[in-house]
Amino acid sequence: MPLDSGATIGPFTLAYQTYGTLNADRSNAILVCHALTGDQFVCEPHPVTGKPGWWSMLIGPGLPIDTDRYFIICANVLGGCMGTTGPAETDPETGRPFGLTFPVITIGDMVRAQMLLVDHLGIDQLFCVIGGSMGGMQVLQLASAYPDRVFAALPIATAARHSAQNIAFHEVGRQAIMADPDWHGGDYAARDIRPTRGLSVARMAAHITYLSETALHRKFGRNLQDRQRLGFSFDADFQVESYLRHQGMTFVDRFDANSYLYITRAMDYFDLAAEHGGVLADAFRPGGKPTPVRFCLVSFTSDWLFPTAESRAIVHGLNTVAANVSFVEIASDKGHDAFLLDEPEFHRVMRGFLEGLAEHRGLGQRLVASR
Amino acid sequence: MPLDSGATIGPFTLAYQTYGTLNADRSNAILVCHALTGDQFVCEPHPVTGKPGWWSMLIGPGLPIDTDRYFIICANVLGGCMGTTGPAETDPETGRPFGLTFPVITIGDMVRAQMLLVDHLGIDQLFCVIGGSMGGMQVLQLASAYPDRVFAALPIATAARHSAQNIAFHEVGRQAIMADPDWHGGDYAARDIRPTRGLSVARMAAHITYLSETALHRKFGRNLQDRQRLGFSFDADFQVESYLRHQGMTFVDRFDANSYLYITRAMDYFDLAAEHGGVLADAFRPGGKPTPVRFCLVSFTSDWLFPTAESRAIVHGLNTVAANVSFVEIASDKGHDAFLLDEPEFHRVMRGFLEGLAEHRGLGQRLVASR
Repeated sequence: MPLDSGATIGPFTLAYQTYGTLNADRSNAILVCHALTGDQFVCEPHPVTGKPGWWSMLIGPGLPIDTDRYFIICANVLGGCMGTTGPAETDPETGRPFGLTFPVITIGDMVRAQMLLVDHLGIDQLFCVIGGSMGGMQVLQLASAYPDRVFAALPIATAARHSAQNIAFHEVGRQAIMADPDWHGGDYAARDIRPTRGLSVARMAAHITYLSETALHRKFGRNLQDRQRLGFSFDADFQVESYLRHQGMTFVDRFDANSYLYITRAMDYFDLAAEHGGVLADAFRPGGKPTPVRFCLVSFTSDWLFPTAESRAIVHGLNTVAANVSFVEIASDKGHDAFLLDEPEFHRVMRGFLEGLAEHRGLGQRLVASR
Repeated sequence: MPLDSGATIGPFTLAYQTYGTLNADRSNAILVCHALTGDQFVCEPHPVTGKPGWWSMLIGPGLPIDTDRYFIICANVLGGCMGTTGPAETDPETGRPFGLTFPVITIGDMVRAQMLLVDHLGIDQLFCVIGGSMGGMQVLQLASAYPDRVFAALPIATAARHSAQNIAFHEVGRQAIMADPDWHGGDYAARDIRPTRGLSVARMAAHITYLSETALHRKFGRNLQDRQRLGFSFDADFQVESYLRHQGMTFVDRFDANSYLYITRAMDYFDLAAEHGGVLADAFRPGGKPTPVRFCLVSFTSDWLFPTAESRAIVHGLNTVAANVSFVEIASDKGHDAFLLDEPEFHRVMRGFLEGLAEHRGLGQRLVASR
């Protein structure tokens, strides 16, 4: 497969999960795209952590993304570390882990790989493509590059380009990883060691950006671990410190440091307008005509990583070409993470949008009648 | 000197600079308190970097903090690394660098040390105490603990307590330092090595919080280093990456990693209300009476590290005791760093406040008539 960098990759593995049943005319497939540290285990326990899938609240029988009605596909992104070919996998040419010899990939490459899977499954047109954060970038990319291959698109808490601040936070994480002597220029796997300290710091820094100040305050405030008094040491005095350290430590058990470098890089490189002469609207004007894809955008009021203004910019681009678009800003104080949390209004919006589409496409009945 | 932790410290050195001339009745002294990574070289070239002092724009002959009129004192904080006793200094008892045997200090301890200097200079009452960010915390602490020793207080871009998000960012920085194998449990100085990689990552993460998203966007946007194309590598493709790396690399030349741990800890521990039964107003009600100190608070609209709401909370506490307080929120898109930058309205506010006070105190004329 050709890559945006000019390199090629292949053969490669794309690890994916499906839920529900593909109907006879293959018209009920929903592609779910995961975020930076997500994976294909979207609504089943994670094989490493044993925790529920990251959208278990949203995907399942009778849930907004109803597995009795739709056929859900979720693939680990190219460059990932949950089975899809990425820097931690063995390079068949050398018999050694790729490490930094893995090519730098883009959101476009991730989507191209997923479309090979969609082809492989014999699906001409996806019913919908859905994703939040980096998943939303893939949604935008797919809808822009393959307007005839998807009926509707649901980009959530995302942006058409990574901002300077977002790039800056990613760069801090990458520097933390690369500063870890156990990183060994990316060649740690061959040495049977992992840069866990650097990756943990990267995760801690990123995790702060996923939460709002309000959420952190409500959750922890200045509460102490030992409620009696300050420790006057560098142990975790405050609950928020202990929480962050835990986030960092558990993350390294399930994620590869080089994958983190590659995937953050792909996000930084994402700039949908740049591929269209700097005019975002042109990303949604294939062959000079308005995109046929139906869009529903969702943002959250307290998300400062992918603020509402970024969604508005996309809506503006879609409006410019008179595309079919709806946009909902959900009032939430949970920050960027809101798209992964129990936000009833968000879930209602998703259910409503999909039900409307399903009616339009004649997917009005649940495929499994008895449950 | 007793410390808030219960430990004691001494003898210790407090390194300071003064500018201007103390008048005959010692009534024109302004104590300037520096921020986390600041120092006493407030309006003269930095001895290590050679760069202008961090408030050169604000302090000097004819400037808002007029050295022809006022006597300026600025001391390196306790725990610092520019001459004042801190973890990098030699413990006289062991003949080795303190490292982590240095006691954990608080903003209260920093202020207590500075008051010894004020005593030493024979100054009964400071004309004013001024500082931004952590400097503002010292201002609040001093005004609260020594209401009769200071005529007026100017806390800028600060808070009466460090928030959960602020603690979280500091913890990331500390973990980055402590994850560096060259840190050696704080005992790196004895090994003639320094945890520069960890300290550099800490500085990078912190630096993002000093700028607004708007400032980062205006300054860098998604501009590339090589304007032609993406590099498809992990080199600094974007200007914002290169800038951050530079911030990290130059910082380690002038700052001690252990000092960074101690000073961030002091900020995290700061909670003025907690010292007064959780009632902030009581911090400004010495002996049950309204504080005699005149306050002027300044915040900046785009400061998300110490947002205006934090200053408002202080104003609210001061209003509760009917203190003499004015408050100005300056419209600026430069983020927290605005207090260090060329912000004409901020400089006008400072000049106006000080001139009003000076008139009130009979400091109406400039001490140096001819210039």
